[in-house]
Amino acid sequence: MSKFKSEIIKCLYKNDEYISGQYIAEKLNCSRVTIKKVIDQLKHEGFNIESQTNKGYKITQLPPLWQQEIVNIELSKQKILNKAYVQPQVDSTQLLARSIINEEHDDFVVLSDEQTKGRGRFNREWSSIKGKGLWMSIVLKPHIPIHKMSTFNLFISLAIQEVVEKHYQINSKIKWPNDIYVGEQKLCGFLTEMIADTDGVNAIICGIGFNLNQTREEFDKVGQHRATSLLIEHGSTIDPYQFLKYLIEAIEKRYNQFLVSPFSEIKDTYKSKSMIWNRTLNYTEGNKKVKGRAIDIQDNGFLTVISEDGEIYQFMSADIDI
Amino acid sequence: MSKFKSEIIKCLYKNDEYISGQYIAEKLNCSRVTIKKVIDQLKHEGFNIESQTNKGYKITQLPPLWQQEIVNIELSKQKILNKAYVQPQVDSTQLLARSIINEEHDDFVVLSDEQTKGRGRFNREWSSIKGKGLWMSIVLKPHIPIHKMSTFNLFISLAIQEVVEKHYQINSKIKWPNDIYVGEQKLCGFLTEMIADTDGVNAIICGIGFNLNQTREEFDKVGQHRATSLLIEHGSTIDPYQFLKYLIEAIEKRYNQFLVSPFSEIKDTYKSKSMIWNRTLNYTEGNKKVKGRAIDIQDNGFLTVISEDGEIYQFMSADIDI
Repeated sequence: MSKFKSEIIKCLYKNDEYISGQYIAEKLNCSRVTIKKVIDQLKHEGFNIESQTNKGYKITQLPPLWQQEIVNIELSKQKILNKAYVQPQVDSTQLLARSIINEEHDDFVVLSDEQTKGRGRFNREWSSIKGKGLWMSIVLKPHIPIHKMSTFNLFISLAIQEVVEKHYQINSKIKWPNDIYVGEQKLCGFLTEMIADTDGVNAIICGIGFNLNQTREEFDKVGQHRATSLLIEHGSTIDPYQFLKYLIEAIEKRYNQFLVSPFSEIKDTYKSKSMIWNRTLNYTEGNKKVKGRAIDIQDNGFLTVISEDGEIYQFMSADIDI
Repeated sequence: MSKFKSEIIKCLYKNDEYISGQYIAEKLNCSRVTIKKVIDQLKHEGFNIESQTNKGYKITQLPPLWQQEIVNIELSKQKILNKAYVQPQVDSTQLLARSIINEEHDDFVVLSDEQTKGRGRFNREWSSIKGKGLWMSIVLKPHIPIHKMSTFNLFISLAIQEVVEKHYQINSKIKWPNDIYVGEQKLCGFLTEMIADTDGVNAIICGIGFNLNQTREEFDKVGQHRATSLLIEHGSTIDPYQFLKYLIEAIEKRYNQFLVSPFSEIKDTYKSKSMIWNRTLNYTEGNKKVKGRAIDIQDNGFLTVISEDGEIYQFMSADIDI
């Protein structure tokens, strides 16, 4: 049954027009009754599938929760991140990704509808409402020395910002080092871990929490008054599969650039997409607390801040109050 | 039954003299028949336990394979690394340690009698004959910035070298960056990985392979002609529990020093225990290949090498042919 399910999803998903039960049955060498059964099952799982006499079936809306088969189809078009582990619920995609690394030699993606223990930087709670956002971790295994990692987040944040701007026409900005904002509200946060030894980086694990389809009421209910979603900004429901495809494409492009190019090549673009210039803000990194203005980003990814009393500070990864 | 087993091992292990079955039975509030049964089970598991009429029981030799209960007793005396995960067989202690990190908040030790996929640097095979060596990974969770990690291996290698010298009176040397040798033969290799993000190190996973009780014949059989063991050098069988205790004590001491002190404080000691001076050797790090002589170690742990044609090179973690 499950093999047919996967094949039937493929048949339907790859066709924009109605496709007849007879045609699918012949193609898969099974009965039309089997086709009908599987389609009923798919409807039960949240697919909207219209059926018309003499024309057949057509998917009119994808389910709001991740379906491994469709994720597979979308990612099969990617070059690096073309393997996915999809779970309805996890403690966090980052922890699941970490545990899969031991067994999985390729690069891969972990996706979940829901996280029960989603976490941001400094172990802060990250709300991951079921089926409302992209809760994802990507795992990459480059051969690079550790010091090169200091600019990874800069390339990735540009990839995420570009998707929002290019495909959804929303004026979003990067909050260094790893958030994406629309105005003063957070749309996306991400967090990059690495497993490394002195010979280099063995794995990069980048967790991305992107707010897709939450409403203002849903944010208010969980006390996230400083958050926004692509739905709120764009005005209509976001297709998560479409978004996933755009995002992975953009990440692959910027990741390949990260591997071969210095940050200086994208520095001007990055700076133009950054939201922290010309503002006096509070910067905290460990015990270092500075009130000041960001004036530049170094080629190694460090942020240069001039304090109110004129001192110059370099931050590797500060927490910034806005 | 298992609770009695653990308690009976404790009773016997903590007493150097004979201890009566009656005494143990009263202490544990169980029958002498139960005591007898558990002791038979322990004998079956490799304990040598002598019994004498009117005197009782006494452990005369510990089993060659790790027993969780005795490891617990030994580690309970330690300050940081006082929790152990003991397995008869693993793919590698390093991989098991990585997967436990997600669930375990404390620092801990992973021990196994045997590794089926033990690995050294550059993914080289590491032979881990059953019950013959210390196949261990330690996991530490300090709050330190990533750059501080560059000297971690220097502190740890000194800890390992000291145990061999102090407790077994063997003249061993450190081969920078992470091996311990006796003469031209390897006694121990270790490998440090970290899980880190830009805010700092989340976990250190240090895998240590230490040859304890292999014979020359056993090494020859697996083609390890350049390896030696503590048994070969010391001349008599090594008690693995005793060795474990010495090693963890030494590592805890040097780790605490690593957290608060710069490498410069131990640099002279380290250099005096290092075997690479006054020799022309081949150094390889990535694409960089240099034939030359090591002349110094920097405060950041880097090795300074002068090539045959007088050029100066800095290595972070070279592979050295000896």
